[in-house]
Amino acid sequence: MTLSEKETLSQNNFPAVEKLLHNEIYEYIKQIFTPFPEKSIETQIDEIINDFSQNFLIADNANTNVEIDWVIRNFGNSKIPAQPTDFETYFQSLNENVVAHSIHTSSPQFIGHMTSALPSFVRPLAKLMTAMNQNAVKIETAKALSFCEREALAMMHRQIYNLSDNFYTQHIQNNQSTLGILVSGGTTANITALWCARNKSLGAKHEFLGIEKEGLTAALNYYGYKGAVVIGSELMHFSFDKAADLMGISTKNLIRVPVDSNNRVNIRVLRQAVADCRQQNLHIIAIVGIAGTTDSGSVDPLEEIAEIAQENNIHFHVDAAWGGPVIFSRKHQHKLAGIEKADSVTIDGHKQLYLPMGIGMVFFRDPHLASSIEKQASYTMRKGSFDLGKRALEGSRPGMALFLHAGLKLIGLNGYEFLIDEGIRKTQYMAARISAMPEFELLAEPDTNLLIYRYIPEQFRDVIANKQLTETNNQFINNFNESLQKMQRQIGRTFISRTTKKTINWDKEISVIAMRAVIANPLTTEGDIEAVLNDQIQIASGISIAY
Amino acid sequence: MTLSEKETLSQNNFPAVEKLLHNEIYEYIKQIFTPFPEKSIETQIDEIINDFSQNFLIADNANTNVEIDWVIRNFGNSKIPAQPTDFETYFQSLNENVVAHSIHTSSPQFIGHMTSALPSFVRPLAKLMTAMNQNAVKIETAKALSFCEREALAMMHRQIYNLSDNFYTQHIQNNQSTLGILVSGGTTANITALWCARNKSLGAKHEFLGIEKEGLTAALNYYGYKGAVVIGSELMHFSFDKAADLMGISTKNLIRVPVDSNNRVNIRVLRQAVADCRQQNLHIIAIVGIAGTTDSGSVDPLEEIAEIAQENNIHFHVDAAWGGPVIFSRKHQHKLAGIEKADSVTIDGHKQLYLPMGIGMVFFRDPHLASSIEKQASYTMRKGSFDLGKRALEGSRPGMALFLHAGLKLIGLNGYEFLIDEGIRKTQYMAARISAMPEFELLAEPDTNLLIYRYIPEQFRDVIANKQLTETNNQFINNFNESLQKMQRQIGRTFISRTTKKTINWDKEISVIAMRAVIANPLTTEGDIEAVLNDQIQIASGISIAY
Repeated sequence: MTLSEKETLSQNNFPAVEKLLHNEIYEYIKQIFTPFPEKSIETQIDEIINDFSQNFLIADNANTNVEIDWVIRNFGNSKIPAQPTDFETYFQSLNENVVAHSIHTSSPQFIGHMTSALPSFVRPLAKLMTAMNQNAVKIETAKALSFCEREALAMMHRQIYNLSDNFYTQHIQNNQSTLGILVSGGTTANITALWCARNKSLGAKHEFLGIEKEGLTAALNYYGYKGAVVIGSELMHFSFDKAADLMGISTKNLIRVPVDSNNRVNIRVLRQAVADCRQQNLHIIAIVGIAGTTDSGSVDPLEEIAEIAQENNIHFHVDAAWGGPVIFSRKHQHKLAGIEKADSVTIDGHKQLYLPMGIGMVFFRDPHLASSIEKQASYTMRKGSFDLGKRALEGSRPGMALFLHAGLKLIGLNGYEFLIDEGIRKTQYMAARISAMPEFELLAEPDTNLLIYRYIPEQFRDVIANKQLTETNNQFINNFNESLQKMQRQIGRTFISRTTKKTINWDKEISVIAMRAVIANPLTTEGDIEAVLNDQIQIASGISIAY
Repeated sequence: MTLSEKETLSQNNFPAVEKLLHNEIYEYIKQIFTPFPEKSIETQIDEIINDFSQNFLIADNANTNVEIDWVIRNFGNSKIPAQPTDFETYFQSLNENVVAHSIHTSSPQFIGHMTSALPSFVRPLAKLMTAMNQNAVKIETAKALSFCEREALAMMHRQIYNLSDNFYTQHIQNNQSTLGILVSGGTTANITALWCARNKSLGAKHEFLGIEKEGLTAALNYYGYKGAVVIGSELMHFSFDKAADLMGISTKNLIRVPVDSNNRVNIRVLRQAVADCRQQNLHIIAIVGIAGTTDSGSVDPLEEIAEIAQENNIHFHVDAAWGGPVIFSRKHQHKLAGIEKADSVTIDGHKQLYLPMGIGMVFFRDPHLASSIEKQASYTMRKGSFDLGKRALEGSRPGMALFLHAGLKLIGLNGYEFLIDEGIRKTQYMAARISAMPEFELLAEPDTNLLIYRYIPEQFRDVIANKQLTETNNQFINNFNESLQKMQRQIGRTFISRTTKKTINWDKEISVIAMRAVIANPLTTEGDIEAVLNDQIQIASGISIAY
């Protein structure tokens, strides 16, 4: 059937409504669901939206400088209109109220968060994904896509674990094997990894049916544990708090080990924590290593953590949501050495794989580990099928695998290597500039492409240089940096985020408010970095906080 | 700055690489990240993809008839290419291997799953969402979008709960209030609802810090319970198994109450189950009512469940992932009466709100319930902020709110009412046709727009009519229907799914394999319904199973 035949048909055959009381709404619904009438609504909207996208993407500033209270004014209507809004009016208001006051995450001077510019092919691909509207939960709604997803995940698995050709031939399209799970984000990936680790380590044994069927309390009783814990650095992402809460083990039992001055977990203390837990008869579900902390991009000593986990027969999870793609760089991949010993690894596609928001991944060394969370349902999710939803936290989900597959093929190893190398190179450039400028203090040597530093008001530059800073001075500098970051954000020309670092000084723990730069946008130049720092200096000159 | 100035600039200013060893990859990366050069890659890909989309959307059949083993052959390569694949080659192979063998979820004769045709405006909107690439986790990466999302959720909340103007004015943009949470799907929505219910009911009290901080075992001890359960119908979606497992209460303690012949939970048995749990000192985290079972679209008697929950002071959750939008129909909304008494409600946008895959929602009657799962983090998620990620299972997530907002405004109450009414009307038409055709047996009167029935081979039509079917007969008919559904799926002209119903017969429980139709696609006509049934009759005539 040709397109024009189809148009005629879909217009003629539209369901006959016996009593056509709602003539208008009927015509309208027909119109918006019919794929391609001449100069269709879709074509018209496509043109409007291409304009919006272009204007959005060429904007230089990080954001408009309007106040949040002003933006909020436009979103106070909780009533759904009875009649459909005409699309020109709607898209015009969407542009004025939403697009105009959205964050220019792709701006080269927006270097404060892990969201950056994307390659252009993802935009048309988003339209294709939506046109196809596959549901990856089961093979009956995602036939070829299910295998495409498995292939893309296997490619990433190979990049991390580099197992034999034979291993991949055996598992890549084997419905009993799960090399990885595509999820909506790193949080779900981390929760899934710990869920698998928990269920496997407290599984069925003799007459005990396993934690899944008998619950946490019964499992701890059966195995003779007093509680269950997860151990990692104090810089673990807050998704681990969510996981510990959700799984019922408590956030108190998320054991946070202190980091060294470079924000890497203290191995000696970690080893001691493991020994303490064992002595207290606490079950260690997993030890977590971080490859790229959210705070500062630092990478834990993964080899050493792997060793501790192996010695104690504990699941080793690596949260590489941010840093994972550093494995693409021949120059920097050594920083992640030991990741290949992890039982599970989280990587976000929407971070350093430069894919759209909504692509998290968890990978497993053992292709059968995810069986510990498998579920069935009669209407779908049949045993022995390729239904991807049976070993996953999520059910229905979109075909985001299209982006992952396209990214790996269209950017390739060399493309990703270039992106990683450039990000780290520019971060080192920024670190060097900060060290050279009297206005700033570098707070840690960057491991990867995150950088923390702070602005030092003029009157404290000497005491900083002489390491004579008092706690009161520090508090003042904190307030100053918080104001500076907020003002910079509000003005909206450039953007840097902020975080709070705990450091030991004067023999006690103090908080340092830090500026946090994330250099991932390939469009960001050295000139942009200078511009961001100069913007801060300029804004700082106008801040007066009484000392 | 104009677009052409920007083009020149972004090409000139691309980061200088001191030693340009990777000239080609550098040029390539520059090219794919630059938004709009003349006849850009983006424009070219957009044209290619428009063709793919058109061809995909005008296809009549449900799917190609190729075997899965044949599709798999194309997805066996676990190696990421070193050099980027050229985009024409890649998209050509994507079209041949993925698009061509994807399921035509929008085909009017694909009436077997909850995935259907979408209004055309979602396709350009997907491109805009990807261009904007907002991260809804926090205000610093989603300024206007955060408020747009809150408004869209408030609109849905109002549709469910219909509280006062004053209530919505107070909470719609109040950062202490959470009227709803946008999640990736119904599974995450259900898990989130139960998580909130669990944490609230086992919260801090006197010296006890609450389940979040002290864990499940300590909470049960402190409150003096022997265990924790969730109670609902035996037709609860398998996401509740996931939730019970994940939360550590065990799938055994997901108490499944039998349904009546119309697939609605048996209220007498439910009441008894609640009493039994109380007597056994088991904490009831929630009672679940279903508004649209996955199996057959049936709706539990929500009013009566609400009453039991209220009497016993138990959280009442309604899983309306499928059936929720029936509230838009003045004619059918009475079927959901009682939903407004629920403490939490799950609705999927990617089902009967006709939005793309990846939009689940959970709503709360009490705007402060979600505080029970709140988390903070120093780099973001600050107390008192509008950061949406602090009260959510997920962290980083896309701006799917754009679709929800646009759907509510562009389809409106009248549009959604039309869609719901038409789906139910056509389902009743199909039910009448099935009842009238000797080849089929209707297995339950449809509550909404799901229908279960089966094919009866000729030799059993008399015994069915005389209610003299034996267990052996039934098993034969089951095998026949399973074969029929698989053949129909494989041939790919039309599609109906299948499920397994447990019914009591001959004084024991038997399994009935059922055909399952889902009539939600507004492009599906009575003619399409006839075509699907006739396709089954034709395929059935060629099946020979020895009796």
